[in-house]
Amino acid sequence: MLGNEKGIITITTDFGLKDPYVAAMKGVMLDISAGATIVDITHLVSPGNIKEGALTISRAYGYFPAGTIHLGVVDPGVGGARSPLIIETEKYIFVGPDNGLFTHAVEKENIRKIIMITNRKYFPDSVSNTFHGRDIFAPVAAYLSLGVGVDEFGERTQSLNLFDVSEPFIEKSLLVGEIIYIDNFGNLITNIASKDVADFSGQQIEIEVSGRSVGGVLKTYGEVKEGSLLALIGSYGNLEIACNMGNAAKLLNAKEGDKVFVRGASE
Amino acid sequence: MLGNEKGIITITTDFGLKDPYVAAMKGVMLDISAGATIVDITHLVSPGNIKEGALTISRAYGYFPAGTIHLGVVDPGVGGARSPLIIETEKYIFVGPDNGLFTHAVEKENIRKIIMITNRKYFPDSVSNTFHGRDIFAPVAAYLSLGVGVDEFGERTQSLNLFDVSEPFIEKSLLVGEIIYIDNFGNLITNIASKDVADFSGQQIEIEVSGRSVGGVLKTYGEVKEGSLLALIGSYGNLEIACNMGNAAKLLNAKEGDKVFVRGASE
Amino acid sequence: MLGNEKGIITITTDFGLKDPYVAAMKGVMLDISAGATIVDITHLVSPGNIKEGALTISRAYGYFPAGTIHLGVVDPGVGGARSPLIIETEKYIFVGPDNGLFTHAVEKENIRKIIMITNRKYFPDSVSNTFHGRDIFAPVAAYLSLGVGVDEFGERTQSLNLFDVSEPFIEKSLLVGEIIYIDNFGNLITNIASKDVADFSGQQIEIEVSGRSVGGVLKTYGEVKEGSLLALIGSYGNLEIACNMGNAAKLLNAKEGDKVFVRGASE
Repeated sequence: MLGNEKGIITITTDFGLKDPYVAAMKGVMLDISAGATIVDITHLVSPGNIKEGALTISRAYGYFPAGTIHLGVVDPGVGGARSPLIIETEKYIFVGPDNGLFTHAVEKENIRKIIMITNRKYFPDSVSNTFHGRDIFAPVAAYLSLGVGVDEFGERTQSLNLFDVSEPFIEKSLLVGEIIYIDNFGNLITNIASKDVADFSGQQIEIEVSGRSVGGVLKTYGEVKEGSLLALIGSYGNLEIACNMGNAAKLLNAKEGDKVFVRGASE
Repeated sequence: MLGNEKGIITITTDFGLKDPYVAAMKGVMLDISAGATIVDITHLVSPGNIKEGALTISRAYGYFPAGTIHLGVVDPGVGGARSPLIIETEKYIFVGPDNGLFTHAVEKENIRKIIMITNRKYFPDSVSNTFHGRDIFAPVAAYLSLGVGVDEFGERTQSLNLFDVSEPFIEKSLLVGEIIYIDNFGNLITNIASKDVADFSGQQIEIEVSGRSVGGVLKTYGEVKEGSLLALIGSYGNLEIACNMGNAAKLLNAKEGDKVFVRGASE
Repeated sequence: MLGNEKGIITITTDFGLKDPYVAAMKGVMLDISAGATIVDITHLVSPGNIKEGALTISRAYGYFPAGTIHLGVVDPGVGGARSPLIIETEKYIFVGPDNGLFTHAVEKENIRKIIMITNRKYFPDSVSNTFHGRDIFAPVAAYLSLGVGVDEFGERTQSLNLFDVSEPFIEKSLLVGEIIYIDNFGNLITNIASKDVADFSGQQIEIEVSGRSVGGVLKTYGEVKEGSLLALIGSYGNLEIACNMGNAAKLLNAKEGDKVFVRGASE
């Protein structure tokens, strides 16, 4: 069993910031585990967008101390066939629906146990069909933060629903990736890792998006003049297209899923 | 006097998330009660919308541990005649303006004492006319979280401003309710309780909103195909109209106040 | 060295509330300083808008207990020439980029030490060029909250980048100020202080904005009828134009930078 002295619980949902749903979950958790430290990752995942939620979790969870419990509720299939589950890894515990929400996270972690949550002892007598975040996941996370072992909550399983992650591919010596996320600054984050770019070692490279060349890979925004586009390796190790003091997404009218090309500039 | 070991204080306001107002209140509270646990319910109540604030508070407060202090500041009449007050119930303490903001909450709780806040000992020498959240309600909530008794803050009163709550009614064997809230997912939450629907026992029922029939009451979103409308009893025990994997409010162009009809299907 | 038993850290950024960046910073901080109390001031500063960030910080920081660490990351020049710094004042510690973000705050505080952050011992081996919030400022703030002295982080300096603050001026016995911020309620906050208005003592005064007179300075919103404009001294001691139960910014189509005039009404 993973211990967590501080009882840190992170929450990622698509509940938005206006409705009382997140607060209801926090109330349930504090009622069970008064000393828990609850940290919001975000509640602005696009409603029902599991892939976006998975990406967001994967880019935040790893900075938290060992033992942190990561609760994710992007759950369009709530009340249906999908199981509620706990994934215990070497360093963390993930709690949420078995719908792929932890796909990116578990790729990087060593899984120890997967538990399908069935033990009704840890949730209220009456469980709604539409809000397992409050009625199942919040109490389970709170009891986990108190040190209750994962095996208490149900039976182990080997199965886990994951979705396919889009990977960049090589086509005629061209590396073809795509925009997987556009952030608050309009930075275009791609699925092309720094190592993919490093494979072009020795060559000058050229990056193209939305029919525009943005040159090679630079180090900082300030290397181009204000309002100009550039490519760099972002803070998560992926190729990003940005605009110095501007918004690349608006400038390029780019959207998630758009293709990004990397080629040796000599060709 | 209600004790509260953890000193949990929730805050509900219409201050938004960009301005420094909420942080100023938190600073004031932590300066008085360094160990308080402050939890946001929401700060996105529509500006000045007391009824919306009241509904939001009523759907979150009850999940928090006994002794929690619930601070509400939706206060368009700030600086005017309305009094600042404390409502102590068996389980909680509510602090805010006497303008109906706790209407739904106090309907469900057993009130012990109502105090009009007048003791200037617990707020700064200079109180602004426009920000009692910072200058009166925040310090009062913080002192309450330290265990100061409610009678310290002013005189008891019996009066309390509440607004009329819209209730569904029967018209020619038709149950007529209305949409009272539309959530982040576009779910249409009505003022029709599950017991109102249960009154049609034995009959098949049919629900109509925006001129469209959405059939009877189902259990889960997944019982209809994707993109289809359905009615169910939501996670707060009220009739809701939803759309499986979609947004019912957009689909129906529905808004708060729209009528919702329930009839026996045989008629 | 300033102590801070509770280890309160506030954060102000332009990262928005959807991306995982703020949570990554919080994870880093909790990993170093598990007992820290982290409070959001706002993450909705307009992207790259240092002046707006500076104003927001200045209107919140002073309510927090002595010893609070105020972390600010509005940092469009990240990775470039601007230095990361720590400003220790009599009461607080500010951490962020040296780009003017603390201009208003340090005007009001007594500065003790300014430190350019250079000691790599307190941040990870690999520092990204685009996210010093996570890789430099968050760990530095966390170590400060543990009581590490500011001199540990680098060399003292005397230089500090501040921007010019727009001040109201007198032109032909007319006081000319401007709107510096529009809040969630549409209140127009000006750079005219209550003392500037007091200089017209003995005279009736008249305030004009967007070509409309809004009369003299009143005390509370309720002194005019609903939907009417008024001027008052706001909760931060500045002249504000508001609309009772309405939105002055919408009514006047006003924007930041618009001029505001105060004149003796007799003239």
